[in-house]
Amino acid sequence: MSIISRVITFDNPAFNAYVTYGSVLVLKMMIMAPLTVKQRLTRGVPISPEDSNVYKGKQLRKSHEDVDRVRRAHLNDLENIPIFFLVAFAYLLTDPDPTTALNLFRVFTLARFIHTFVYAIVVVPQPARGLAWVTGFLITGYMAVKAICHFKTF
Amino acid sequence: MSIISRVITFDNPAFNAYVTYGSVLVLKMMIMAPLTVKQRLTRGVPISPEDSNVYKGKQLRKSHEDVDRVRRAHLNDLENIPIFFLVAFAYLLTDPDPTTALNLFRVFTLARFIHTFVYAIVVVPQPARGLAWVTGFLITGYMAVKAICHFKTF
Amino acid sequence: MSIISRVITFDNPAFNAYVTYGSVLVLKMMIMAPLTVKQRLTRGVPISPEDSNVYKGKQLRKSHEDVDRVRRAHLNDLENIPIFFLVAFAYLLTDPDPTTALNLFRVFTLARFIHTFVYAIVVVPQPARGLAWVTGFLITGYMAVKAICHFKTF
Repeated sequence: MSIISRVITFDNPAFNAYVTYGSVLVLKMMIMAPLTVKQRLTRGVPISPEDSNVYKGKQLRKSHEDVDRVRRAHLNDLENIPIFFLVAFAYLLTDPDPTTALNLFRVFTLARFIHTFVYAIVVVPQPARGLAWVTGFLITGYMAVKAICHFKTF
Repeated sequence: MSIISRVITFDNPAFNAYVTYGSVLVLKMMIMAPLTVKQRLTRGVPISPEDSNVYKGKQLRKSHEDVDRVRRAHLNDLENIPIFFLVAFAYLLTDPDPTTALNLFRVFTLARFIHTFVYAIVVVPQPARGLAWVTGFLITGYMAVKAICHFKTF
Repeated sequence: MSIISRVITFDNPAFNAYVTYGSVLVLKMMIMAPLTVKQRLTRGVPISPEDSNVYKGKQLRKSHEDVDRVRRAHLNDLENIPIFFLVAFAYLLTDPDPTTALNLFRVFTLARFIHTFVYAIVVVPQPARGLAWVTGFLITGYMAVKAICHFKTF
């Protein structure tokens, strides 16, 4: 049996966890959109002029820190989660220990939830956000380096 | 035959449609770049100081609503299309009815084209853009939930 | 043997190169984050109010061109690299000549490194950045069109 059919199979708990946590992270990123809409409506900050009919009777603003905050958290997700997704697949193909892989997926997912929470829900002083961010960053970097060392076809 | 080799195969029309519509959506996102360049050149809004030699003889501006509009549409694509791509693969692995899968890909792709059209080409009042956006959002969310319920390896 | 098991295998150098260069590009994108942090700390531009305790004794600014520059380069990566990743996989499934595929991955990766270098490290006048960008753009477009023509399941 080839390595790939041994790795990319429902018999491999690491692969199942990859699909599960990947989908959880997609849902997590999706939540940023209604969160932004809620802040926009509460603070009266339409993103586009043609949206102003949704804000009738509200005092409109150009920007508000609470809107910017959710946007920054969303952008940080965009910068970190899709590349994790892609490199985690490359990492899976290196046939890692399933328990290690599962734990890395768990910690990454948890770290990204904490990052958003302390950034955009309840603002917590640094280094809370920095630590959450660096945790996900190091896991992504570890996976990328492991995959490069394994495949090294330049 | 394993489920994966039954799903990830050119004999599965849902898989072929996934690759086709995925590539169409990539082309769709790519179009946002020349569209932005066109608006920047027309409106005289260079993104970076070293670009000003391309704008000779033009009156330069810091920003223009038509440029911002294309940028917002592009950013919205970035927020919605890559996660769809990723979760649609997870959804395919749940072995869905091929016709349902095909129709979801069709509707998502159409919705994203409409979103860009009413946002950045011909501005249409709300709820046009909101409806286009929510259609793609709900499809992505449905796929994520279906994949999580199927794999649930936490 | 099915086409997919002939393409998605460690015996296919194009597949190994895809995983290798994909992981290299993930590392390349990751570098943008510490680069941004470095510029923020040097220029005194905290992204969020709660970060100001990290900047003690520094004169703080709302923005600085050097910070914006790295951010623009990062955003351009986000606009171009994940879609390349996705469409390169679709392209691989069309069973391309391995040497051609390998060279396209090489040129794309090199072009993206050059793009960042001339944009955010040593500013080089146009058309340096434009050429680097268009190289990656054309490769991504070629792959998307090839995949669509091959699968065409609409």
